[in-house]
Amino acid sequence: MFQQITILGPGLLGASIAMAVQERGLAKRVVAWSRRAESRAKCRQQDWCDAVLETPEEAVTGSDLVILCTPVQTIVPLIKQIRPALSETAIVSDVGSTKRVICRDAQNALNGLSATFLGAHPMAGSELTGMEHAQANLFEHSACILTPVDDTSTKVLTKVSTFWEALGMIVTSESPERHDEIVAHVSHLPHLLASTLCAYLARQDQSWGKLSGGGLRDTTRVASGDPQLWKQILEQNRNEVLSAIDGFEQVLHQLKAALLNKDSAGVIKHLEQGKTYRDQLPTD
Amino acid sequence: MFQQITILGPGLLGASIAMAVQERGLAKRVVAWSRRAESRAKCRQQDWCDAVLETPEEAVTGSDLVILCTPVQTIVPLIKQIRPALSETAIVSDVGSTKRVICRDAQNALNGLSATFLGAHPMAGSELTGMEHAQANLFEHSACILTPVDDTSTKVLTKVSTFWEALGMIVTSESPERHDEIVAHVSHLPHLLASTLCAYLARQDQSWGKLSGGGLRDTTRVASGDPQLWKQILEQNRNEVLSAIDGFEQVLHQLKAALLNKDSAGVIKHLEQGKTYRDQLPTD
Repeated sequence: MFQQITILGPGLLGASIAMAVQERGLAKRVVAWSRRAESRAKCRQQDWCDAVLETPEEAVTGSDLVILCTPVQTIVPLIKQIRPALSETAIVSDVGSTKRVICRDAQNALNGLSATFLGAHPMAGSELTGMEHAQANLFEHSACILTPVDDTSTKVLTKVSTFWEALGMIVTSESPERHDEIVAHVSHLPHLLASTLCAYLARQDQSWGKLSGGGLRDTTRVASGDPQLWKQILEQNRNEVLSAIDGFEQVLHQLKAALLNKDSAGVIKHLEQGKTYRDQLPTD
Repeated sequence: MFQQITILGPGLLGASIAMAVQERGLAKRVVAWSRRAESRAKCRQQDWCDAVLETPEEAVTGSDLVILCTPVQTIVPLIKQIRPALSETAIVSDVGSTKRVICRDAQNALNGLSATFLGAHPMAGSELTGMEHAQANLFEHSACILTPVDDTSTKVLTKVSTFWEALGMIVTSESPERHDEIVAHVSHLPHLLASTLCAYLARQDQSWGKLSGGGLRDTTRVASGDPQLWKQILEQNRNEVLSAIDGFEQVLHQLKAALLNKDSAGVIKHLEQGKTYRDQLPTD
């Protein structure tokens, strides 16, 4: 239970956190700040928000948990900005899709303070953005990866872990580097394949799209995600993403070779390996 | 309106057709045949089936529409088998995911008869198989591609087109070759990318899967499809599929180059092209 939680950037994830916190009584007060005046105005009409402040510094004042829900490239600049206003006991966290760069720079940004940063990545959300799509149950049954570093105290790790569990998530801890390797494979690679498939089909006959079925729709759903947000994610995780693409290409080449060489056993083996993996993925 | 429709191979698609035909009163009688005795027994308990015959020849006797819903490699052998039992006026059709090989060989198989073959590919279905997942509304609002050849009469084309429209589908005609090129791109390529992604992830740390979110689940759903069925589809459409993979790889290389060269504008352009394409795909 926190006294006051601040959400910086209440979009889909931030507003969903605020809703869930109110619904489950995890904080006495939820305070928000949004960069755009229009968003702040919209925020003021929401019942999941006790106060909306004009600046991030005002918004974090007196909070014991601050969660940054802004695009990944803005997280560290914002931490530098709120640094002077943070409570001594404040825990600063985020929901960013990359962790290595953010955790390293966030720790440096808070150097010398007793306030502490602990990275978090709730694997929830969708191609939709904006608080209008927020829902209190967004996080239920999904994975949340926390990325403690050597300096992270057990107390802070436990508090943040308990928080996400209270939102219904299955919490795991990984190093920031390991996190980035994992999500390069299970999130960033799927995203860029979907996006590349769509970019490729966009260059073919445009009438083909209307002949497609549910397979193409599902396979490419994530390609509707915000290009600006995803550009930042891919760039902050560049090396891991490039390495995941290389690995994927090797397996694709194996399938191509099997098809080309009329190696039916090889094609079947590939498809069976894929099916076995897919069938054991967690369901919704 | 048909006097009698025969479904050979009442799995997900075949049983769904039968249900829809009964619900919408499109035939006086629906007759089925399944290769396995166990499936025939199950079929006899279904109310969408007026009779279940022991052989395909018996099942097609007296039918004015015969729809083959078996795996693509079995369609032509089955047409050869039922040839002697077909009514003079019978229209033979199918639901196979490839068309060039099937239409050519089916036409040859019926050579000299007044019964005629017209290929059909309803773009409905899912990774699920079997009559237990069938539903009468499976085809509603989805595309159906008919593949007439030079000899196809307008009368047959109109009859088959009207049939699929009565099942709720949006019907288009393409040549068998053009059909295969289109589905190589909008169906077979998405499938093999999903399958390859899963086959690649299967070779990584197995614990990563449980850290994935809805993005990976959606992107890879089709990889749960039956490997035997998909092997046949990929093999029957080998050249078009290989060419689609090549085209996809070129676009993937462009994205890789943009990431590697820190060309943010190039990454954004790629993601935006993908999003624009995805956003205009037909919805469910």
